[in-house]
Amino acid sequence: MLIAQSGGPTMVINQSLIGAIKEAGRHPAIRNIYGSLHGIQGILDQDFIDLSRESDSTLEAVAVTPSSMLGSVRKKPTARDCQSMFTIMKRYDIRYFFYIGGNDSAETTLIINEEAKRSHYDFRCYHICKTIDNDLRENDHTPGFGSGARFVALAFMGDNLDNRALPGVKINIVMGRHAGFLTAASALARQYPDDGPHLIYLPERSFSMNRFVADVKRVVHQHGRCVVAVSEGIADHRGKPILPENGGRVDSHGNVQLSGTGALGDILAAEIEEKTKIQRIRADTFGYLQRSFVGIYSEVDAREAREAGRKAVQFAVNGSHHGSVAIKRKPGKKYQVTYRRVPLKNVAKETRHMPDAFIADGGNDVTPAFIRYATPLVGKLPKVGRFRNYRVPPAQ
Amino acid sequence: MLIAQSGGPTMVINQSLIGAIKEAGRHPAIRNIYGSLHGIQGILDQDFIDLSRESDSTLEAVAVTPSSMLGSVRKKPTARDCQSMFTIMKRYDIRYFFYIGGNDSAETTLIINEEAKRSHYDFRCYHICKTIDNDLRENDHTPGFGSGARFVALAFMGDNLDNRALPGVKINIVMGRHAGFLTAASALARQYPDDGPHLIYLPERSFSMNRFVADVKRVVHQHGRCVVAVSEGIADHRGKPILPENGGRVDSHGNVQLSGTGALGDILAAEIEEKTKIQRIRADTFGYLQRSFVGIYSEVDAREAREAGRKAVQFAVNGSHHGSVAIKRKPGKKYQVTYRRVPLKNVAKETRHMPDAFIADGGNDVTPAFIRYATPLVGKLPKVGRFRNYRVPPAQ
Repeated sequence: MLIAQSGGPTMVINQSLIGAIKEAGRHPAIRNIYGSLHGIQGILDQDFIDLSRESDSTLEAVAVTPSSMLGSVRKKPTARDCQSMFTIMKRYDIRYFFYIGGNDSAETTLIINEEAKRSHYDFRCYHICKTIDNDLRENDHTPGFGSGARFVALAFMGDNLDNRALPGVKINIVMGRHAGFLTAASALARQYPDDGPHLIYLPERSFSMNRFVADVKRVVHQHGRCVVAVSEGIADHRGKPILPENGGRVDSHGNVQLSGTGALGDILAAEIEEKTKIQRIRADTFGYLQRSFVGIYSEVDAREAREAGRKAVQFAVNGSHHGSVAIKRKPGKKYQVTYRRVPLKNVAKETRHMPDAFIADGGNDVTPAFIRYATPLVGKLPKVGRFRNYRVPPAQ
Repeated sequence: MLIAQSGGPTMVINQSLIGAIKEAGRHPAIRNIYGSLHGIQGILDQDFIDLSRESDSTLEAVAVTPSSMLGSVRKKPTARDCQSMFTIMKRYDIRYFFYIGGNDSAETTLIINEEAKRSHYDFRCYHICKTIDNDLRENDHTPGFGSGARFVALAFMGDNLDNRALPGVKINIVMGRHAGFLTAASALARQYPDDGPHLIYLPERSFSMNRFVADVKRVVHQHGRCVVAVSEGIADHRGKPILPENGGRVDSHGNVQLSGTGALGDILAAEIEEKTKIQRIRADTFGYLQRSFVGIYSEVDAREAREAGRKAVQFAVNGSHHGSVAIKRKPGKKYQVTYRRVPLKNVAKETRHMPDAFIADGGNDVTPAFIRYATPLVGKLPKVGRFRNYRVPPAQ
């Protein structure tokens, strides 16, 4: 068996890796457990490590460590890459392949599987879902999202308090290329009626600069301050991104670079500065902290990520030759999930968006339905203390 | 007694507030405990709350909540402001005043105290130290620093793993206007020999763009990647800030806005992009998260912040009429501190810088002496897991 990781890291992607490794150890069909370093690039380079030799304490230490421990890559294989990989994999008698990643990685897995069928290479090929963006089709939610959402919620809880202490406009840019789930998770920070974020802009709704300025002015008029959550992927009504496309820097899946720059926040802050008389306008971009912070993760998310890795191995050994592990939520009041094998093509490439039922009518907030959806995924959040503020009557 | 908070929030500034409130409750000389909202602005506006009416459970909930719960302000009082404040304070018979803040707040406390003496207003006036920048004179370190440093260390631990998974150049901008302590704390993230941050730039050393590019190229050559910690306050050999002064936006203490914009990171990333052939260059600015994140704090820092608040009340009731509470480290191997009253003028206005002994000769790293200094302040950090990476021998 060969396992690898791909795409953006998450806080719990190693849980899936360790879940798969430990499960594989129970199946006699799998004699060796190899890890490929930096995804499919490691296959092409024959850059393999022997994971069955790692001690249990190392495995468990890696499980709670964020970011892809096998290294990652953003690479879409060509038919020729696939042939090269099969040549190499045959040498090692690799008959099980697991790829932990998002929709691009599912596409990669699908391409490899299709090419393998065409070449009559007998092997089993599985995608294990992960993405903080929570935008995989077929999934109620994806491993990585709950932890990313927890980071975002904690960050907004603190930042709302900061903004309350030194009032002004604070704009925070949150990850999420096409799906607003992670930005929406900022709403979980609210504990008191006047808590921010007061405005939430998602990529599922077109962004109007004029509307944004009017929204901010209204909130500042009401609360004397305004905390704003903005998805990095917001675009205008023509679909043109608000953040200029940075010289067209794209990866091999055609994605434009959005993270790792503070430009969007600065553009929005400058707009408020120019169009209003509001003082103290600031913007922060949460950046990579929201996917790779040490020590912050959702316990539910960590558990599910581990289980997704285990299930992939079970499905591969006992079931179909290929597929993706999807998380489904059981109906009912109590939060419960099941893991299903779904066809690779159902998860590959295209992304899922926030359902309309999760987006408030004004297009600048989420609904209670989203809060109900997301709450069990992030785990219990700390309670923010607040004085009762007993006013001292004016002295004469 | 009247207490207030001023300047930038920290994760533990409310510990000092609650420490002072609870200590004040034990002294018969203090009959009422009022809080002024938004620092001295709240005095001028007679915006007071009665803190003695808050329940113990509220006090303890506020203590573990980040950011200034009484609200903050950045305002330097004029002599006229002081007279207005005395008129108001006399009406409430306020005879004890405590101001929790950094060097600017110490200056404010000094000004108020000098004006009070001049006006023969009999009252006791204390500054309680706090600042994540750790730049207060007379102090071994300041409450707030340990928690901010812990956040920075955890962030770099995760970001180093992220950069290891998807190699490239990652530049992280850390708070610290004139003092590099917080940026230096990024070094605490290192657990393995190849861990980042690989380069650390502090405001105590002049920043050369050419030198920076050469440093990054060298590290990328060695490690195939590079994580960089940069203080927001870096300036060239003429003292000109690398970050343009943002239209000269300044507060009433004359400080230029540095945080709340991603511009510095983007400038540095663009320079690497332009001058090298390195791929995948990203920049994040940690921004306000590093001072107001919910749930991350150093236990040592929280305890000391609480104690600083308590000591201020004890000094004011039993000792001199004015002063600032400073933290001194006892000599010896075991980490221990004492709290001393120091004159306000010794802490006011001017800041402390990183001692030369903490800065590596090249000016792009810290020394082991800094690590020894900072380690007890942040508390125990989680251990990062890592595979032993047993290489699979090449197959034929």
